[in-house]
Amino acid sequence: MFEPFIYEKRISRIRSILRANNIEGILLVGMTNIRYLVGFTGSDAVLFIGEKISVLLIDGRYITQAGKEVTGCEILEYKDKIEGITALILDCGVKNIGFESSVLTCDQYFRLKDQLRGVVLKPLSTDIDSIRAIKDSNEIKYIRKAAHIASRSLMSIVEEIKPGMSEKDVALILESKMADSGGEGLSFETIVASGQNSALPHAKPGFNKIKEGDFVVIDYGSLYNGYHSDETRTLTVGKITEKQKKIYNIVKDAHDRALEAVKAGVSCREIDGIARGWIERAGFGQYFSHGTGHGVGLEVHEAPVISMNSEGFLEAGMVITVEPGIYIPGLWGIRIEDMALVERDGCDILSNISEELRIL
Amino acid sequence: MFEPFIYEKRISRIRSILRANNIEGILLVGMTNIRYLVGFTGSDAVLFIGEKISVLLIDGRYITQAGKEVTGCEILEYKDKIEGITALILDCGVKNIGFESSVLTCDQYFRLKDQLRGVVLKPLSTDIDSIRAIKDSNEIKYIRKAAHIASRSLMSIVEEIKPGMSEKDVALILESKMADSGGEGLSFETIVASGQNSALPHAKPGFNKIKEGDFVVIDYGSLYNGYHSDETRTLTVGKITEKQKKIYNIVKDAHDRALEAVKAGVSCREIDGIARGWIERAGFGQYFSHGTGHGVGLEVHEAPVISMNSEGFLEAGMVITVEPGIYIPGLWGIRIEDMALVERDGCDILSNISEELRIL
Repeated sequence: MFEPFIYEKRISRIRSILRANNIEGILLVGMTNIRYLVGFTGSDAVLFIGEKISVLLIDGRYITQAGKEVTGCEILEYKDKIEGITALILDCGVKNIGFESSVLTCDQYFRLKDQLRGVVLKPLSTDIDSIRAIKDSNEIKYIRKAAHIASRSLMSIVEEIKPGMSEKDVALILESKMADSGGEGLSFETIVASGQNSALPHAKPGFNKIKEGDFVVIDYGSLYNGYHSDETRTLTVGKITEKQKKIYNIVKDAHDRALEAVKAGVSCREIDGIARGWIERAGFGQYFSHGTGHGVGLEVHEAPVISMNSEGFLEAGMVITVEPGIYIPGLWGIRIEDMALVERDGCDILSNISEELRIL
Repeated sequence: MFEPFIYEKRISRIRSILRANNIEGILLVGMTNIRYLVGFTGSDAVLFIGEKISVLLIDGRYITQAGKEVTGCEILEYKDKIEGITALILDCGVKNIGFESSVLTCDQYFRLKDQLRGVVLKPLSTDIDSIRAIKDSNEIKYIRKAAHIASRSLMSIVEEIKPGMSEKDVALILESKMADSGGEGLSFETIVASGQNSALPHAKPGFNKIKEGDFVVIDYGSLYNGYHSDETRTLTVGKITEKQKKIYNIVKDAHDRALEAVKAGVSCREIDGIARGWIERAGFGQYFSHGTGHGVGLEVHEAPVISMNSEGFLEAGMVITVEPGIYIPGLWGIRIEDMALVERDGCDILSNISEELRIL
């Protein structure tokens, strides 16, 4: 999907991790990083990168596909994954390798350790997990396009949403609009949550009918060339109470203030603190039960994490969400989420839709 | 989703694993098993089952949802998952626990081991992985319904498929039909692969136009109450060659013969051997590059595996696929897949659609 030199550049960044950790090679087992590093889009593979070699191990289903998609990387077939890795590592004669410990399961690790006695297996997670955090210009183009497909789709169907429709109806109309608009799939299972359901941050759309006075939380996204978008709008249906308006505005202000602070060099924890602090000072801190945001790219949730426990800093080229919410159990909830491209002096908001939607 | 006594029965089966392995508790971290055991449908949680207690650990996003969905199980909130597990295990005073080693990542394991010094952590995968293999009557009802939605949808749109349409067009029409027919989502990303693409067992639908003389492989499924269906049909478009006809029939016969052999007590390896042997004897063994089938349920791929390395036996109540294929790189491919409920004396085929589809 990208030019070969892009993959070469990415692999050379992996090789700098080799040197920094004093190891002879890295085993990657997560499909997203493998896609990022060599362009292979299948569902199962292992990538080994040494100082001089890179080898993609795949099973028989993927021989033809890998031959088409992957350049600059040797392709080997395995019958059993762990045996395939073992044979390769022994063949290379390396004695000290790193592995993607946030993805490798214990079962795989125990088998590998047993077969590779005498080889040091070093867990590497943070180093590897953050390799995709800063996006290049093509990646940004794809994410922007995914966000555009999603936002425009919601805008063009918002007038069709009426009291009496089910959450599921709304999800179907929106999803079919995104598909018609060039989305290659859903970024994740669409959330449409009305009434009491909106108080569940991760509700699934059901057969609930949307009623007058409801909030309707719509958390949705599209895929484009494998890149995700992620955005949330909370619509108001008919007349809402003064209390609802007030709390909506608290979330909106928390969202706006956090976004205003987004720029390279600011700590992720600070962004979370701005949104969370605003909601806490308004007296609703206990009802904001999740982090403020996360990176978006080949996965809908990826590095960096924007939460009160975050340790990193924003860098130019990261794409993150800012998504504060207030959820009052048994009543209703509100979340407003936008995607932002971090820039040197601020950020570029990738969503194309007003935060102040309303169904009349 | 199920009656409380169903969950109690399932948890008592987990407790028999405790006794068989001489451990005091089991940590489950895979969301599918957690859903199966206590009904929680969120995306993140930990379940600890001891001889006398069962505790669901969740983060703040899921408090309300877990309260609604889960009965007969204590619910605790954590800020950090590993710290939450540690506090619980230390509080229970257990010294010897099993864990779901096919799901727990190395990172999680290393942190747990570090925090739980003095507690033996025993990897348990096969025992736990197979707990969902035999389905009860409600599960079978849901899978049958998912298969019914999918099959009927394909049947009702098959006449609309015409040369000149793209693979993506076909996927969209089929997916939207399944959604309209009560499917609650896709069982997996729909595969529509025509011409050369059909030689890729895991192709993604693209903008390729379907042409006269093509095979079109459609591998698709629907979700119902969380249960999956999985079925493949290979359509022929316009006139195909004698060679294509011959190879189609080899796959069809391999599929039929394997299905005829499906019944309780037969080894999974034998079912694979029947399909594979048939294709090998016809001279195409090297082009059948995957296993013959797998279980289907809350996951689209689950126990048992039907391959040449399988060690288990079919049991009444399992739901499996039988899906031989022949893929000739650069030319085309064929796969025919049905779902079957294993019974004492044979099997019940859950798909409702002829294997001999054809576009005229």
